[in-house]
Amino acid sequence: MTKALTTKAPTTRDKLLVAARQLFWTRGYSNVSVRDITGAAGVDAALVSRYFGGKQGLFEATLAEVAPWEALAADRDGLLAAAVASFTHPVDDQSEAASAFSMLLSNVIDPEMGPRIQDMVQNGMADPLAETIGGPRAAERAAMLLAVLFGLALMRKNFRLGALKDMPLEELRQLTTHLAEAALGYRG
Amino acid sequence: MTKALTTKAPTTRDKLLVAARQLFWTRGYSNVSVRDITGAAGVDAALVSRYFGGKQGLFEATLAEVAPWEALAADRDGLLAAAVASFTHPVDDQSEAASAFSMLLSNVIDPEMGPRIQDMVQNGMADPLAETIGGPRAAERAAMLLAVLFGLALMRKNFRLGALKDMPLEELRQLTTHLAEAALGYRG
Repeated sequence: MTKALTTKAPTTRDKLLVAARQLFWTRGYSNVSVRDITGAAGVDAALVSRYFGGKQGLFEATLAEVAPWEALAADRDGLLAAAVASFTHPVDDQSEAASAFSMLLSNVIDPEMGPRIQDMVQNGMADPLAETIGGPRAAERAAMLLAVLFGLALMRKNFRLGALKDMPLEELRQLTTHLAEAALGYRG
Repeated sequence: MTKALTTKAPTTRDKLLVAARQLFWTRGYSNVSVRDITGAAGVDAALVSRYFGGKQGLFEATLAEVAPWEALAADRDGLLAAAVASFTHPVDDQSEAASAFSMLLSNVIDPEMGPRIQDMVQNGMADPLAETIGGPRAAERAAMLLAVLFGLALMRKNFRLGALKDMPLEELRQLTTHLAEAALGYRG
């Protein structure tokens, strides 16, 4: 219906975003050149500046696709179940390659983007989570919850430990809930 | 005392190992070229083949410097304390850059070395740990313990969450022990 109104511009922009997401989110910001992205997208290298103001602007544009964590963290009663559910999706090798989890991991160890990602997780995940948890040592318990969720995802998706990688999701949720409850139940 | 016997060869080899460790362990195998390493070491590029048989042999040689985990995992009574102690060193930005933890992280997400690192952690850490833990669901509990230890290290050293990064070590050990006990205490 809107096809008649479609111009070439959004298509090129989308191609760049898709290629940038795939490369930046798996290999890390510093390990990807603008030329890698424009090559994969099949567009002229000069267009990155035009559409995104440069490499960094293009990276930032991919971050807009990360699902906001605030909504999940806002509901105190449903927090545990929602947190567990959001970290226990089936592992799909194809989509996994460029997941938000992979983006955080490969860019937090990046020399240029590390501080940006630290800031994103502190302000976008840890702080709202601590706010929702509330009470004594809320920041520590929020950090422990993130450690448990990221640690299990790391062992299952990246290290692919035998005990976790083929585990039925129901069992994975049960085991994740066990550790998440321990994190939230810490009293120091 | 042995200085008179020292030839130039071991020095070149050591220079290559130091440079390779620094680069491979922070940037990941695929993101480092042989030329990057020989450039940093200040030696001729052809020497990598002579001393290590190539890039992959050089990477393998750096892995020989990773402290064996089997010894730690062998003592059932001391397991919890030893595991906690080995993951709660002070964060030293300079040495941290090329730590074994950083090596595992930046190479498990590497397209070429991922499987090698998965194998290393499965056979060198998870399996001996499960053996020591013993009893029902030992493999799951070993995986959960590794998830807790790696997850906390990730949040403290890489994401640098405010609640953890400047925490006194005594408190960090207490909080790590809390989660490690929850992992080992899982009964399904």
